[in-house]
Order: sequence, then structure tokens, then C-alpha cells
Amino acid sequence: MPAIPDDSCSIARSLGVLGDRWTFLILRDAIEGFTRFQEFQWSLGVATSVLTSRLSALVEHGVLTKVDYQEPGRRRRSEYLLTDAGRELFVVIAGLQQWGDRHLPYEPGASMRRVDERTGEGVRVGFIDEGGAEVPPERVQLRSTSTYPAQRLEARRRAHAA
Amino acid sequence: MPAIPDDSCSIARSLGVLGDRWTFLILRDAIEGFTRFQEFQWSLGVATSVLTSRLSALVEHGVLTKVDYQEPGRRRRSEYLLTDAGRELFVVIAGLQQWGDRHLPYEPGASMRRVDERTGEGVRVGFIDEGGAEVPPERVQLRSTSTYPAQRLEARRRAHAA
Repeated sequence: MPAIPDDSCSIARSLGVLGDRWTFLILRDAIEGFTRFQEFQWSLGVATSVLTSRLSALVEHGVLTKVDYQEPGRRRRSEYLLTDAGRELFVVIAGLQQWGDRHLPYEPGASMRRVDERTGEGVRVGFIDEGGAEVPPERVQLRSTSTYPAQRLEARRRAHAA
Repeated sequence: MPAIPDDSCSIARSLGVLGDRWTFLILRDAIEGFTRFQEFQWSLGVATSVLTSRLSALVEHGVLTKVDYQEPGRRRRSEYLLTDAGRELFVVIAGLQQWGDRHLPYEPGASMRRVDERTGEGVRVGFIDEGGAEVPPERVQLRSTSTYPAQRLEARRRAHAA
């Protein structure tokens, strides 16, 4: 059975960039302020070749940018900084954090909190309408447009009719 | 170099459940209303053994629940339905969708829209404070608590001081 082509699905396209555990964890570290190859390696304990390939892919996809730096008396090194596009993935990483804290709780208590730096208040990830008001998730609908694959639309119809 | 143990990180724990591309795509399909093994297989074109193992893992982790059904004159089959915990992953999937639509746009136009079913208005994924007001992402801070690993805290300090 052939797969329905996934080009039209933005979730699949995002996963083409992010779709493995290491990549998500590199992003987590970048959001926490890690920038250097050694910092990522120390944090993740991942093989050099794996880290190299994942960082290169993130640079290639415009999530990170590679910048050279040099400390006095040391050799030239590279830093990996989040681009604007990379920073926009914060909400995805925060969504995973929120879900983990809720459904896979860490016995001694959550190791990180998300706060509004202006108020110190806790911050959730959720749905917001164009006017900035919260929308309860059960009211959020996915509506297919004219570019939704016909094959998939039929499967959806069948699934909903069942 | 040993990895810093990731038990304390809810992002890593969530990725322990979700951490591969197939699992995210199964979730996407479940959110779109697909429930049957054959529907997932038809949608994803994935090997039977892979789909079986991913669905079992999602059931084991309480994201999906397996329910038997039987159509008249047909053999007994199973449906996979989202649990409450599974439905809470909608915001993560929607975050991936939002990012893909923005940064990896599909030339003919987005194939799905997220709308508030009450108003038909577009819905974004974002940060919300305890009072339900939107918080701009640049104001959201990750603050470590007392259960944050000491090793990692030191790496973070070094990274921020650099």
C-alpha cells in the first residue's frame, strides 16, 4: 500500500526537519542557552558524528546559524545560535514539556518552570484566536482546504462516517 | 563523556513516548479522526510491524486506547482512540503544523487550517498566562527548580557566562 504523499502536510514537513529525538533535545539545549558543540555533547552524551550531522541539518534548514568565535590564545571555534525560525520552535518544545510534566511526572517535582519574566507567573501552551483570547482545545477544528490531498480526504470521510 | 541523566527533563520524557516520526504522524492521523489499523496504514504506508509496535507503545503509554468493534458479518477488529492525555498532545501537533506552514510553506497553500469552531476564526498556538492572556514568547523564561540536575545547571551557567 503506497503512502499518501506528505508534501502537503505541514506537520510532516516540520518533522522532516525535526523528526528525531536528538534533534528535539539539541533544540531544547539551544533554547536553554547552550551554543557550543562541546556543550551539546556534554549535555546529550551523543556520538560526535551524530551531533555533527544533526547540527548541520539544523543549520541547513535555517533553525540554527553557525558563527565562528575565538577566545584569546585559543583556536577558532563555532557557536550555534537559534535563528528567528528556530526560536519559534520554543512553543513546540514547551508543549512537550507541559505534557511530560502533566502525564509523566518526575517524582521529586518538575525541574523547570515556564514563567512570564515580567510577572513571574506560570505560563501554559495553548490555543489563541486572532484577538489574543484563549480558545479551549476542544473548540479547535482542523479544516482541510482545497490543497488537501483528495485520497486523504476520502480516508477522513470514511473514518468519520464509520 | 557521559550523558546527563534525562529523567528530570519532561521534554526528554515526552520524547521517550513520542520520539519518532511515525509516532507523531500516527498522532496527527488520530487527531484527524483516523481510528483503525488499516486507516493508519493506508495513510502512512508504513510496514505492518512498525505500525503495530508504535500503536502498542502509544496504548501502553496511555495516549491511545484500544477498543474492539465488530461490524455485522465481519470479524472482530480494533479501534485506537485518543485518551484525554492523547488529546492534550493536539497543541504539540498544532505547533508543528504552525511552524511548517510558516517556515516550510507548501507552494499551493496550506492544506489545513485551525479554526475556532464557534467563530470560524483562525487559531494560533502560543503562550498563555494563568489569567488566560497571551504572553509573547520572548517574555517566557525557563527557570530551573531545585530538582534541576546540578551538572546541567553548571553547564547552563557556563553557557550563559560565555
